[in-house]
Amino acid sequence: MKVNGSLFRTIWPTADGAVEIIDQTRLPHVFATLRLNSMRDAEFAIRSMQVRGAPLIGVTAAYGVALSMKHHASDAALKATCDMLARARPTAVNLRWAIERMRDLLSPLPAGERAAAAWLEAERIAEQDVEINESIGRHGLELIRSLHQRKGDTVNMLTHCNAGWLATVDWGTALAPIYAAFEAGIPLHVWVDETRPRNQGASLTAWELAQHGVPHSVIVDNAGGHLMQHGLVDMVIVGTDRVTATGDVCNKIGTYLKALAAFDNGVPFYVAMPTPTLDWSLQDGVREIPIEERGEEEVTHIDGLCDDGQVRRVRLTPQGSRAANYAFDVTPARLVTGLITERGLVAANADAIRARLKNN
Amino acid sequence: MKVNGSLFRTIWPTADGAVEIIDQTRLPHVFATLRLNSMRDAEFAIRSMQVRGAPLIGVTAAYGVALSMKHHASDAALKATCDMLARARPTAVNLRWAIERMRDLLSPLPAGERAAAAWLEAERIAEQDVEINESIGRHGLELIRSLHQRKGDTVNMLTHCNAGWLATVDWGTALAPIYAAFEAGIPLHVWVDETRPRNQGASLTAWELAQHGVPHSVIVDNAGGHLMQHGLVDMVIVGTDRVTATGDVCNKIGTYLKALAAFDNGVPFYVAMPTPTLDWSLQDGVREIPIEERGEEEVTHIDGLCDDGQVRRVRLTPQGSRAANYAFDVTPARLVTGLITERGLVAANADAIRARLKNN
Repeated sequence: MKVNGSLFRTIWPTADGAVEIIDQTRLPHVFATLRLNSMRDAEFAIRSMQVRGAPLIGVTAAYGVALSMKHHASDAALKATCDMLARARPTAVNLRWAIERMRDLLSPLPAGERAAAAWLEAERIAEQDVEINESIGRHGLELIRSLHQRKGDTVNMLTHCNAGWLATVDWGTALAPIYAAFEAGIPLHVWVDETRPRNQGASLTAWELAQHGVPHSVIVDNAGGHLMQHGLVDMVIVGTDRVTATGDVCNKIGTYLKALAAFDNGVPFYVAMPTPTLDWSLQDGVREIPIEERGEEEVTHIDGLCDDGQVRRVRLTPQGSRAANYAFDVTPARLVTGLITERGLVAANADAIRARLKNN
Repeated sequence: MKVNGSLFRTIWPTADGAVEIIDQTRLPHVFATLRLNSMRDAEFAIRSMQVRGAPLIGVTAAYGVALSMKHHASDAALKATCDMLARARPTAVNLRWAIERMRDLLSPLPAGERAAAAWLEAERIAEQDVEINESIGRHGLELIRSLHQRKGDTVNMLTHCNAGWLATVDWGTALAPIYAAFEAGIPLHVWVDETRPRNQGASLTAWELAQHGVPHSVIVDNAGGHLMQHGLVDMVIVGTDRVTATGDVCNKIGTYLKALAAFDNGVPFYVAMPTPTLDWSLQDGVREIPIEERGEEEVTHIDGLCDDGQVRRVRLTPQGSRAANYAFDVTPARLVTGLITERGLVAANADAIRARLKNN
């Protein structure tokens, strides 16, 4: 999508066999790209959230395997690479999905053929991500179009965290329908949850919507319930890091609270879900999905731009107060209106998911 | 309560006829007191949130009337004073309650007697606030004690915003039961919602709990639902700015989301309510209570302490992104387990409220 008027993706191969990414930790105040030369660079990019978002994490891991195979393509190196990359973020199922796909392809090949095959496969995974998101955009567009036809006025969307193009290779998952509707000329306004503690909404979603010209307002995570009570939200659409076979949705912490408010006010609550995000092994999201706990500094401190143009970290809490930092929560399927997948809209229950998506 | 080991209140008269307050805009990084010499100082303190919290706003307004009467005690001056103070914050019903009480007392008096009477009445309102909060603390303590007896382990409380002693003259409303339980030796831990956008939880509740020695953890506002799903919250207790005759509760933005999560997980959700906070004129909180919209800079910027010891303001959002800032929301009575008042526990419905509290 557009940055300063030019089209960008979040990750792309360079002519000399490396990979470039947008350093998302520096947004929204600084737009900078970074070169990944090695598997360790890729692993660091995932762990430090220079890249984030389930689909982009998967693609970055695939390129990480490819970068590793250029130098060491033995069975032992393949295993060590896959193990190391898989540990970079514990929750994202796409990460393990992409690594498994690379391992399954590469394991049977002679070591001498692995580097070239890995590179092609990483590119293929990236292209497939773009295709998936375009399809999610098309299916979601129809939902927004019919809302707009019923309402006859600007459609107010609400989204949490960043499931935009910055979270994928291009288009995004939750934001793909919004970009598709915007391109189709449907009048739109997006409420952007700032999404504490890492503020991916205020810093990434707001930035990409602003760059692309989509009308939006940043709100604190506390505000969505009030907006829904007053008819100011027509549809909620969020991304997901992992969905169970029964339709429970693991996503950024706070998603569950918005789903409760949507349910309480009759606002449709959709989850944009690329089918690789489905985890067929899980039945009960709240009980079975391990929730990543991150460092307390993400809660106690925050980065921002000072008047003098410097990005500085400031402390928000008093000395002597500890913080707890759970990164995700699980929204039970009963609160989800539907899953917008690349294959169309699927109800969030075990029967519908099995019937529509089982033959992946 | 304790600050650096010494007992403090939030507002107190000086020997020479002025009033002192704690400047709450500088907490938690700087503890400083401020002198109010005039009604305009009091009005500014309320408007700029140097004092905040419904009960403390009411007491400050009462002292503001008293400070004004020292210099100008005519009927016209009394009217102008009351009108100006009432406009300082639109939502707090205590503000108007305290001003009405001062006006009703002073109007029939000769101008020459108004200054002395106003001063005594402001002191009386302050003392009554302390008595009310001590009573709320005693009644809430019984709820916490019985939870502890059933659980036999540390009781995990969750609170939103700051309804602690900093929001009142002393003790607090929502935190009064917590302080009472702490003093009674019940093992406690408090989850403190940071409460964006003004972070009253992270900066004020955390600070006062830390100063008094009460175990607590700061969390982002997004986290409470996840904690409740996993049995990590035994009771929610919040304050309120205004309660309808039917039990709908207006409180800091985001309270409604926590009430939904508590209801969904069977966690008791209590509101600490001094009876002056009741607004008998209102029946439907969501439809009837006007919600204050504040400046967008509270969302787009935040203050914090830099490594060099300076408190600086940083920008969180990209250039070109607007923000919306609704300060309160309304929690429907159906989500409220009970109102903890100075007269005991009252169910959040019109019949119970009328039967227990009508003869104020």
